[in-house]
Amino acid sequence: MSNHIYKKIELVGSSTTTIEDAVNNAVAKAAESIRNIRWVEILETRCHVEEQKVTHWQVTVKIGFTLEDN
Amino acid sequence: MSNHIYKKIELVGSSTTTIEDAVNNAVAKAAESIRNIRWVEILETRCHVEEQKVTHWQVTVKIGFTLEDN
Amino acid sequence: MSNHIYKKIELVGSSTTTIEDAVNNAVAKAAESIRNIRWVEILETRCHVEEQKVTHWQVTVKIGFTLEDN
Amino acid sequence: MSNHIYKKIELVGSSTTTIEDAVNNAVAKAAESIRNIRWVEILETRCHVEEQKVTHWQVTVKIGFTLEDN
Amino acid sequence: MSNHIYKKIELVGSSTTTIEDAVNNAVAKAAESIRNIRWVEILETRCHVEEQKVTHWQVTVKIGFTLEDN
Amino acid sequence: MSNHIYKKIELVGSSTTTIEDAVNNAVAKAAESIRNIRWVEILETRCHVEEQKVTHWQVTVKIGFTLEDN
Amino acid sequence: MSNHIYKKIELVGSSTTTIEDAVNNAVAKAAESIRNIRWVEILETRCHVEEQKVTHWQVTVKIGFTLEDN
Amino acid sequence: MSNHIYKKIELVGSSTTTIEDAVNNAVAKAAESIRNIRWVEILETRCHVEEQKVTHWQVTVKIGFTLEDN
Amino acid sequence: MSNHIYKKIELVGSSTTTIEDAVNNAVAKAAESIRNIRWVEILETRCHVEEQKVTHWQVTVKIGFTLEDN
Amino acid sequence: MSNHIYKKIELVGSSTTTIEDAVNNAVAKAAESIRNIRWVEILETRCHVEEQKVTHWQVTVKIGFTLEDN
Amino acid sequence: MSNHIYKKIELVGSSTTTIEDAVNNAVAKAAESIRNIRWVEILETRCHVEEQKVTHWQVTVKIGFTLEDN
Amino acid sequence: MSNHIYKKIELVGSSTTTIEDAVNNAVAKAAESIRNIRWVEILETRCHVEEQKVTHWQVTVKIGFTLEDN
Repeated sequence: MSNHIYKKIELVGSSTTTIEDAVNNAVAKAAESIRNIRWVEILETRCHVEEQKVTHWQVTVKIGFTLEDN
Repeated sequence: MSNHIYKKIELVGSSTTTIEDAVNNAVAKAAESIRNIRWVEILETRCHVEEQKVTHWQVTVKIGFTLEDN
Repeated sequence: MSNHIYKKIELVGSSTTTIEDAVNNAVAKAAESIRNIRWVEILETRCHVEEQKVTHWQVTVKIGFTLEDN
Repeated sequence: MSNHIYKKIELVGSSTTTIEDAVNNAVAKAAESIRNIRWVEILETRCHVEEQKVTHWQVTVKIGFTLEDN
Repeated sequence: MSNHIYKKIELVGSSTTTIEDAVNNAVAKAAESIRNIRWVEILETRCHVEEQKVTHWQVTVKIGFTLEDN
Repeated sequence: MSNHIYKKIELVGSSTTTIEDAVNNAVAKAAESIRNIRWVEILETRCHVEEQKVTHWQVTVKIGFTLEDN
Repeated sequence: MSNHIYKKIELVGSSTTTIEDAVNNAVAKAAESIRNIRWVEILETRCHVEEQKVTHWQVTVKIGFTLEDN
Repeated sequence: MSNHIYKKIELVGSSTTTIEDAVNNAVAKAAESIRNIRWVEILETRCHVEEQKVTHWQVTVKIGFTLEDN
Repeated sequence: MSNHIYKKIELVGSSTTTIEDAVNNAVAKAAESIRNIRWVEILETRCHVEEQKVTHWQVTVKIGFTLEDN
Repeated sequence: MSNHIYKKIELVGSSTTTIEDAVNNAVAKAAESIRNIRWVEILETRCHVEEQKVTHWQVTVKIGFTLEDN
Repeated sequence: MSNHIYKKIELVGSSTTTIEDAVNNAVAKAAESIRNIRWVEILETRCHVEEQKVTHWQVTVKIGFTLEDN
Repeated sequence: MSNHIYKKIELVGSSTTTIEDAVNNAVAKAAESIRNIRWVEILETRCHVEEQKVTHWQVTVKIGFTLEDN
């Protein structure tokens, strides 16, 4: 645990199945452009409803990652 | 997306299995008397415990639906 | 429902699979030293990430139990 | 404790005497049109003041009740 | 100021022009089915965006009204 | 209800007997120097404990009053 | 930007037309007795309703100003 | 006021009569096992309802006490 | 409504005229570098004051947009 | 601990060196016009930045003091 | 990072010098009876004031530690 | 004070010595890639603990900066 600086970004992941899957989808998307992801904070969960059934779980997350040294 | 007015009501759904199932149960109950459900906001999750094990997932939700024109 | 007094303690449960499993693990640990657990309140959910994937679901809970009469 | 669904409504009860009486008045009013009231959550307490004295205790509550099966 | 009981309901009003207009639209809709509206609390303001411009102001409000005596 | 401007001040009232009495004490003190008190918002309740018993109820309130025209 | 100390006071401004006008009215009233007003924080917006229409926008603000040196 | 360290525990006191009595019951229970209780913070008040009437006031409190030197 | 991932960024828009104009200015600035803006959440409104009058409305917003597939 | 009434005022203290120094500056300023200061609550800490370095620590505090008997 | 369960306790540390010192004092006290302390969350900072000067920094913290396997 | 638009990013600064030093480290890191930093808001302070002592102060901040004109 050295003197690292971390950055957090806020994403909304989506899934047709579970809350956990929505979080995993957000992390997978973030991993396309960010290295060294360290943690996720779940902020809010909402559902999109169509024809009177939940069709998507929408989870707002903060994703924390290490800023690399220059 | 026209000039709709939406109403939100607050329910507590319950399930012996998962958080997602408790939300689905609340939506199914709401759908018995409300048309045009559009979204769900998850506010709070609690568990009922019996004999030292979680027996029910109790999820408080707000359910948003379109108020129809008169 | 008599004049009971309840106490709440705050734990962080952890699981490699689901949020529900992390809560169950916290309750199981609490049950080793506490009798008469009555309810759980879920306060916060975070994830530990390694190699760009969620590896642990970490759920902060308050666990409520009946204080027994002396 | 079966798989019940609960609904919450928000009322403001009023009393010239105490906070408890204002809550009881809200519950009595709710009981005129709702069956199976189960719990009350007190959200906010305000007072109306006239001639430099508190004349009414106004207590905002959420009242939870069981939605009956169809 | 007598011993009235008030009820609050939660609506989302929408407008293409201003926040105030969205609130007025919510009150007008509520007035179709509720008598004796007394106050509005603004909880949250969001905008819907299309083609990179705000097209709707969406304002979540609580509307308080007097419950009439039976 | 004209175009009045109101001011709020924050006091902590104290009482050896009840929460209501602590609020009344705060209003009585405010009334020594402020005219036209209109409402009270209760923010927080704490108790001072001595010899293992509650000796004082300490209630933090906001007191709203009309600013008079010059 | 020197070592100034600022004070904040809490007012409720009122207007029959807009939220912005209610804030301006609160600032104008504060300016009658306070010098060096620097900023305003909007805390809460409510409306007074009469005959089923919004008649007043009531905006609670904190007003920050520089305390002058003695 | 020396360099004391305090600990807080969270209890839920219950009473059939008043909020104050529920707090006193929680403090009395805490005093069975804790010395040097110093203050109470009231966090949340709920009521249990049976046969359409409030039967128990349930008050969640934090109780602060001095940790004694070893 | 497919399995999109959204990102939120936080801006402060400014305007000399209205809250709505400050939000529109923030959206216009964001649109210079971001495609597919979907919604805005208003978090906080402050005003800058000069010569005892509000000169700028400063509105903190979160802007949500779709992350495009790679 | 008798039946005192306390008042709280909100100040923003500033310092070029530390958070503690900013609080001390706010207390020193308050002590010029207020007697019997009893406690401080720290609400919020912000920094002013110039030329890419923190130049001022700005700490918002509530200062509590005893209202004297008339 | 295995499947540990953590517990959090809430303490108030005190110091005549700095916020950091008050936190360190709380951790030192906790370390007398708890093994495997892992993190601290700072919740609230208050000051005790005597003779118009801050005499003690009082910092409320949550201290997290690993519950050991039986 | 013209019609600027500001952006906020969220970082976690770390230091072995003080809260202020952790904030300064976060600002220094931000200054490597961002021009025109204007202010910092401190959101949350946590500590990492090793061998029963605080080893790192971890401060979550929002950093506000001016978005330059194109």
